[in-house]
Amino acid sequence: VSRIAYVNGRYVAHRDASVHIEDRGYQLADGIYEVFEVVDRRLVDVSRHVARLTRSLRELRIAMPMELSALHVVMREVIHRNRIRDGIVYLQVTRGVAPREHAFPARPVQPAVVVTARRMERAPRDARAGQGIRVITVPDSRWARVDIKSIGLLPNVLAKQAAYEAGATEAWFVDSDGFITEGSSTNAWILTGEGEIVTAPGSHGILSGVTRSIVLEVAARRGLRLAERSFTRTEAMAAAEAFLTSRTTAVTPVVQIDDQLIGDGKPGPVASDLRALCLAASAATRA
Amino acid sequence: VSRIAYVNGRYVAHRDASVHIEDRGYQLADGIYEVFEVVDRRLVDVSRHVARLTRSLRELRIAMPMELSALHVVMREVIHRNRIRDGIVYLQVTRGVAPREHAFPARPVQPAVVVTARRMERAPRDARAGQGIRVITVPDSRWARVDIKSIGLLPNVLAKQAAYEAGATEAWFVDSDGFITEGSSTNAWILTGEGEIVTAPGSHGILSGVTRSIVLEVAARRGLRLAERSFTRTEAMAAAEAFLTSRTTAVTPVVQIDDQLIGDGKPGPVASDLRALCLAASAATRA
Repeated sequence: VSRIAYVNGRYVAHRDASVHIEDRGYQLADGIYEVFEVVDRRLVDVSRHVARLTRSLRELRIAMPMELSALHVVMREVIHRNRIRDGIVYLQVTRGVAPREHAFPARPVQPAVVVTARRMERAPRDARAGQGIRVITVPDSRWARVDIKSIGLLPNVLAKQAAYEAGATEAWFVDSDGFITEGSSTNAWILTGEGEIVTAPGSHGILSGVTRSIVLEVAARRGLRLAERSFTRTEAMAAAEAFLTSRTTAVTPVVQIDDQLIGDGKPGPVASDLRALCLAASAATRA
Repeated sequence: VSRIAYVNGRYVAHRDASVHIEDRGYQLADGIYEVFEVVDRRLVDVSRHVARLTRSLRELRIAMPMELSALHVVMREVIHRNRIRDGIVYLQVTRGVAPREHAFPARPVQPAVVVTARRMERAPRDARAGQGIRVITVPDSRWARVDIKSIGLLPNVLAKQAAYEAGATEAWFVDSDGFITEGSSTNAWILTGEGEIVTAPGSHGILSGVTRSIVLEVAARRGLRLAERSFTRTEAMAAAEAFLTSRTTAVTPVVQIDDQLIGDGKPGPVASDLRALCLAASAATRA
């Protein structure tokens, strides 16, 4: 099967899928994105992703490019045409094409929409979660509005690359006060020695992940102690467990932060439990 | 004349000029740009722009996509094909096309190169400088590495738009300590009551403009008192003169900051003098 992408109203061969050089996404990072997950050919947690998409667009005052029902049809069609069983749908919306200038186009233009899909097998992700991963910490160099899921990801690119070069899988950002905000493409969590599950509060300083919300909910239903509060790198180093969350990683245990093993250096029971609960909760939403 | 753009090795009609949807510039803001000026059909200050281009690429570890001599040929060709007498050449280089993922492509890909040109008459710019412009101040929400001329310009987009909606022409960023760093697409300057010309120091907190460097040089040759130091919004409000610099504005007087008139609310003599010196200095470098 050759890959198919949806670009501005048309289904095209992925290799030929292109946008104009004056798309404001290309020249100014003036756009947003979402990553949806496909489980057994169906989208999961659609309403949560759509809510965040809507919020991102509203914050940047980009018009919703099409009816949500039409968008849903497009995503299903892209899944179907690419024969995705398990994988992701990537959706990008930019302010559109206009002669380059910083301010919004004087006459509003049609937002640009790109939808792609690709396979992502579950087994390697499960294996990685079973083993646990290493993270490094890096200074949080990002802008003040990372709560908007914008395509302005250069700081995240540099952080992720630094992690890979250090033999780690993810980089956690540490702000100027020593608090861990989140990872380059994941939210950051610890389980304290006192049995409290901690993640940074939803604010302008983090991108409030869909999976983050799901984990908060399943943990609460499980009766676990939860705190949305700031935690420092020092506190994380001394944690009983650590883990990260994102759409594609679900809950993945962190067994080392910089040079410090977390707990006994193996995935902890709470993270593993939350992973199973989280995957089950998402699977139940298939639509 | 229909517009022509250079895109990855080919000269194409501007309306058809496109890049792949998985160009990392489009999905991750993983690229940089330069704006060159064309005066009387020739590029000015080429060596300064090329030095900054080289630095931006090096900081992001993107390979220089072609020999500098070849790049120069491309830029001249784009000027020629578009019959630009006075205007700008826009050059964008991204890390290239690769399946979306934050980290650099595991196997390096060819950087993507786009070169466009457009006319920009001098008369309206001179008229605006003769009148002076208004700026507003906004919190500096940008990332920590604005010294890299990256395409991650979303905070600048929002700031410029805020300026336009306030009836102003530019927004000056104020950092958390109350210091004015620079504008959304310009550097910021004041002339103090004591006759000192002040602009923020070159650092990771500003994009060190080519025109900024030229003004520092011509002012020094003129024997004016100069200080590269931080200055607050409060200090700017009380300044004798204020002005901004960029490639396309040269030196343009600022006559109002937020609700405060600067001096007598008319362009000051020092800014006007520096504008003439700066334009002459650039014109002398035509190549």
